[in-house]
Amino acid sequence: MQKLGVAVLGATGAVGQRFIQLLENHPWFYVAEVIGSSRSAGQPYGEITNWVLDGSVPDSVANLTVKPLDGQFDSPLLFSALPKEAAEEREIELAEAGHVVCTNASVNRMVEDIPLLLPEANYDHVRLIDIQREKRGWKTGAVVANSNCTAMPVVMALAPLRKFGISKMLIVSAQAISGAGYPGVASLDILDNMIPYVGGDEQKLETETLRMLGAYDDAHVSWLNAIVSASCNRVPVVDGHLVNVSITLDATPGLDEVIETWKTFTAPDVVAQLPSAPQHPLYYLPQVDRPQTRRDRNAGNGMSTSIGRLRECPILGYKFVALSHNTIRGAAGCSILNAELLAAKGYLGTFQPEAHLSSVS
Amino acid sequence: MQKLGVAVLGATGAVGQRFIQLLENHPWFYVAEVIGSSRSAGQPYGEITNWVLDGSVPDSVANLTVKPLDGQFDSPLLFSALPKEAAEEREIELAEAGHVVCTNASVNRMVEDIPLLLPEANYDHVRLIDIQREKRGWKTGAVVANSNCTAMPVVMALAPLRKFGISKMLIVSAQAISGAGYPGVASLDILDNMIPYVGGDEQKLETETLRMLGAYDDAHVSWLNAIVSASCNRVPVVDGHLVNVSITLDATPGLDEVIETWKTFTAPDVVAQLPSAPQHPLYYLPQVDRPQTRRDRNAGNGMSTSIGRLRECPILGYKFVALSHNTIRGAAGCSILNAELLAAKGYLGTFQPEAHLSSVS
Amino acid sequence: MQKLGVAVLGATGAVGQRFIQLLENHPWFYVAEVIGSSRSAGQPYGEITNWVLDGSVPDSVANLTVKPLDGQFDSPLLFSALPKEAAEEREIELAEAGHVVCTNASVNRMVEDIPLLLPEANYDHVRLIDIQREKRGWKTGAVVANSNCTAMPVVMALAPLRKFGISKMLIVSAQAISGAGYPGVASLDILDNMIPYVGGDEQKLETETLRMLGAYDDAHVSWLNAIVSASCNRVPVVDGHLVNVSITLDATPGLDEVIETWKTFTAPDVVAQLPSAPQHPLYYLPQVDRPQTRRDRNAGNGMSTSIGRLRECPILGYKFVALSHNTIRGAAGCSILNAELLAAKGYLGTFQPEAHLSSVS
Amino acid sequence: MQKLGVAVLGATGAVGQRFIQLLENHPWFYVAEVIGSSRSAGQPYGEITNWVLDGSVPDSVANLTVKPLDGQFDSPLLFSALPKEAAEEREIELAEAGHVVCTNASVNRMVEDIPLLLPEANYDHVRLIDIQREKRGWKTGAVVANSNCTAMPVVMALAPLRKFGISKMLIVSAQAISGAGYPGVASLDILDNMIPYVGGDEQKLETETLRMLGAYDDAHVSWLNAIVSASCNRVPVVDGHLVNVSITLDATPGLDEVIETWKTFTAPDVVAQLPSAPQHPLYYLPQVDRPQTRRDRNAGNGMSTSIGRLRECPILGYKFVALSHNTIRGAAGCSILNAELLAAKGYLGTFQPEAHLSSVS
Repeated sequence: MQKLGVAVLGATGAVGQRFIQLLENHPWFYVAEVIGSSRSAGQPYGEITNWVLDGSVPDSVANLTVKPLDGQFDSPLLFSALPKEAAEEREIELAEAGHVVCTNASVNRMVEDIPLLLPEANYDHVRLIDIQREKRGWKTGAVVANSNCTAMPVVMALAPLRKFGISKMLIVSAQAISGAGYPGVASLDILDNMIPYVGGDEQKLETETLRMLGAYDDAHVSWLNAIVSASCNRVPVVDGHLVNVSITLDATPGLDEVIETWKTFTAPDVVAQLPSAPQHPLYYLPQVDRPQTRRDRNAGNGMSTSIGRLRECPILGYKFVALSHNTIRGAAGCSILNAELLAAKGYLGTFQPEAHLSSVS
Repeated sequence: MQKLGVAVLGATGAVGQRFIQLLENHPWFYVAEVIGSSRSAGQPYGEITNWVLDGSVPDSVANLTVKPLDGQFDSPLLFSALPKEAAEEREIELAEAGHVVCTNASVNRMVEDIPLLLPEANYDHVRLIDIQREKRGWKTGAVVANSNCTAMPVVMALAPLRKFGISKMLIVSAQAISGAGYPGVASLDILDNMIPYVGGDEQKLETETLRMLGAYDDAHVSWLNAIVSASCNRVPVVDGHLVNVSITLDATPGLDEVIETWKTFTAPDVVAQLPSAPQHPLYYLPQVDRPQTRRDRNAGNGMSTSIGRLRECPILGYKFVALSHNTIRGAAGCSILNAELLAAKGYLGTFQPEAHLSSVS
Repeated sequence: MQKLGVAVLGATGAVGQRFIQLLENHPWFYVAEVIGSSRSAGQPYGEITNWVLDGSVPDSVANLTVKPLDGQFDSPLLFSALPKEAAEEREIELAEAGHVVCTNASVNRMVEDIPLLLPEANYDHVRLIDIQREKRGWKTGAVVANSNCTAMPVVMALAPLRKFGISKMLIVSAQAISGAGYPGVASLDILDNMIPYVGGDEQKLETETLRMLGAYDDAHVSWLNAIVSASCNRVPVVDGHLVNVSITLDATPGLDEVIETWKTFTAPDVVAQLPSAPQHPLYYLPQVDRPQTRRDRNAGNGMSTSIGRLRECPILGYKFVALSHNTIRGAAGCSILNAELLAAKGYLGTFQPEAHLSSVS
Repeated sequence: MQKLGVAVLGATGAVGQRFIQLLENHPWFYVAEVIGSSRSAGQPYGEITNWVLDGSVPDSVANLTVKPLDGQFDSPLLFSALPKEAAEEREIELAEAGHVVCTNASVNRMVEDIPLLLPEANYDHVRLIDIQREKRGWKTGAVVANSNCTAMPVVMALAPLRKFGISKMLIVSAQAISGAGYPGVASLDILDNMIPYVGGDEQKLETETLRMLGAYDDAHVSWLNAIVSASCNRVPVVDGHLVNVSITLDATPGLDEVIETWKTFTAPDVVAQLPSAPQHPLYYLPQVDRPQTRRDRNAGNGMSTSIGRLRECPILGYKFVALSHNTIRGAAGCSILNAELLAAKGYLGTFQPEAHLSSVS
């Protein structure tokens, strides 16, 4: 099968770089276009980019010429790592022009006909694309969002617990510096320090989690009916967002039952066979002191969520710890998985990965 | 006035060192005896001690010969930084022998006639010493404990809010490595990492906070009648324990009223004039991103607690962030303040600091 | 004696803040004016400043209105924390207008009639001010520079060894993040990382050290005649520049003699009695693993240099480790000490600190 | 081809764990036996081991029962991560009993008939095994050592420069905490700190580098005739040893020529086709601020050495920076590569990997 060329918007930034890194050697997609600011446009990606990830710019991308954001793109599939302001209108314009935009930007996440997609948790929300296309008169274009990086471990851990009825979730995060992009957090602000504040993330956690955990029903998504309280903190770790979560479950299952629910959780078949889907979406770690940020963030190539320390919360009922890699599962990796789901469900036009899928499944 | 010679038990360990550092230039006390393990006994303190604090062993202590724990001591006042096992019986024996023991060990904290003292919050608990002496037949000896280091910022912040009726507190801590002593946390376990577990601390938080916030009444302490849920985490900072706290207040005061309560909080007069008492027991920081561990832990020479980010908690009512220096306010500094209170209240026998006090007040 | 009001140029930046912090409670000077960029001018210092040091803006300065750099200043003494570009011409203009400018900027350090002053090492270079004033026709103004922060521990350690004849020095630095100002080093660039490059510092080390260690003779400074090779590295520590130094000494003294030279080194009397002069300019630490950055950077309130590990270098003769606090001894603290020397030597016009000096000496 | 079962001595420690991690999915070897202390013997490896690397114990090893060191082993090939004391005699005994021992222990490195092997640099030293066997009367046994982890980047960088005549090397290291094993460096000793001392490493660097860079000639290794001066430092990074190196080259090549020598360096064919040999033993990075510890330590799966910043040293001639992963290239990975070389050269008895080799080459 021929791979599909894709474009990365905001390619020179930290999340853009992660897209490029994760798409190297991807079985379905290859980076055909890199889109940057007007300052970098016209220059070779490898020269203009201050590569902040490990190693260096992949050879296959280094020689691509950066294209300006206001130009036209050949790729039907666009991954967006644009900043909020740039993303708001341009992503819609590009979808209108026929592109499928898988975006990491926050600005369009709560738009009613744009799916906030986390395939293991809510793959059926992808059907909002039908609504979106119908309502907006788009034939091939679409916008699909992924959530805030701190919401990921919460939603991954809670998705299988919806059957018990989740009514309250109190979340205290410990977020990695890479979540703030580059240059992001000044080293003087975080070395031997902790900042009990991450601008905007508490609000996002208190809304995006409910939308992601909601049910697709009659052409729209009904939010989960729960109360969320979030407190966000920045800690001196490179990658990995860890959350301490207390929840109330209406059905009051035993601790063992909750653990068993996590251990036996699998993604729906259509998701499980996607190339970026981890073999185990969730790991429940039995050790008393896990998950730990550095040691568990790369589980499942950074796409698995690790959970541990389930115990009774004297106030809310249950408490536990969860961890996801914030720039893989929590950003670029999730967008790529979203795009794979779109491909598998036929939303990427003529691109047909069935051959691959059958060989996988 | 002549200073009172004191002894430090467990003097070579990390908390013992902090006692020695804080007692250098103390206006009332000086370190006359250093007590260590049988391994170090008989050797000069400055030679046998691997000084892990900044700088080096104070000159005045370096030449003291380490005494064994099973010997006899001249000092009427003993500060104990003993490990749990060593502390349990020996502290009682030494009190029985007539010494006043101000201890940082956890083992005797919940004994009913031993005050768990945090002077700004519960100075009247000191009266348990009368009960203790009467019950045990001690004339001059006593044991007074200070709490777990993570409980300190919680109790300091909540002490003035008792008037509103505290019924629930959900605490998520981020604790410094120095809280684990030396060698304590292995660097491979914490660099670029976070550990969502601190052995024993959750249980301590769920009990000690209630005892400290309790009322002295009719010769015993009635615990605060509240539910506590604690989740403890270790983070890569050197000093400073930060807590994210959600609480329920029966009286539902406005946010401004709570802040005003903190801002106007002062210690009782007898406490405020003690040499180690900070001018401001509490600081409420108006910035959206404070307190921060490195920047605020040394407030009030490490004896003040910094609070910030009071806001509504959609689940429990109120939430905020608090921070205390864990080895000063949370350990040695609090023990020293406790001893000062004992001196001021006449529990240290013939030692009379009134002259000092009048010059202070 | 009445204190002298001084101005801080570049007051809102990281070094400017350190000036303000160190000048709080200074016995001779107080901050009367704060000078900032046009963006911050006209606003209260406490509101416009993102205070990056510990604690918060001193009360005495918080309410000062920031003045623009192109205005006029009342203070005869100006401390400059200006960036290079802003400093180059403006510092000269202000000296021409009659101000004494003690600057931390690099741009005028190598100008022949501007002393590059480190009082313990070369206090007699202060006499260049006479040349400067004569040559430029200035009556009361002057510009005095302090060196690059990494040169400080090198020059402090080598100053007393000049008597042995220094012909070669090979320096490998490990520099703190605070040396880059704020926001300075991005946390993603330095957490769990080391950068073997600090722009411009190797060149500065290879020239400024020689000028500072030079002799004042016949109205100019003769550079030390030695070869310097410097390699500069950034490491994840907050404060403190540590250097591994190998040197060749013509006189080939014994190791004990070198150590004794360091131990007995004192500043000239006129310097030793200045308020910011540390009691011990140098500490030689006997432990095999000292100095250590965090544990020794605050020696002498951050003004002492700590040296250790003197041993034979099989190639160059001698090697050792030295450490100074980069933003105190290496920047603002040294500028303040320079200003104190100027005051003591009568270069600050009518301001006469003799009364203070006699009470000190 | 059937894989060869191997044993790991000291399997529960940090280096032992790295052996097990690197041997998972190895094409020639699999871990058949794990050897530990008497304390852990008899228990399942997965239960007794405090796994300090990322993730968790590989499933294939978790159920192996730990064997005591004084027992007998079935595997012909042993990887030793024993501490010095345990290694000294036991490794010789085991070789005498017929095992080939590839050891990371320091104790036997300088024994004249034991090769100190770094295949890309001195694969011909492997012939010392013939001498060793002849001299000691061993038929199938052998001991092969790899060097100190800090010597690795030095020797890798200098191996191709031997043709220019190396006469002096001055090395200043910045070593990761993982080099000290587990628990190793206490976090209180290294967070926001740097320790200018690593016990024993300076001596090792000043001898092992010369032996490794020496020539095999007439049945023994002639050390490189050069002077080495080493200064070793511990810095707060997890993995990766970085060295600042100044050298004197007799032939005084141009900088470009040196860089070209590095860029074109390849391992001998017999080494290049080994499964653990990196495609590029050396990378010369053109950026002014590379190699950086976190970003470059994993080059070539942790087996490549990254070099950068070649420039003139005013004192010694040339200076540069080099970096290797200390527990992969610098320890377990090198031992495994050594064992592969032994297999390829027929020193592992009947085990014949030729089939693999031909498919690789």
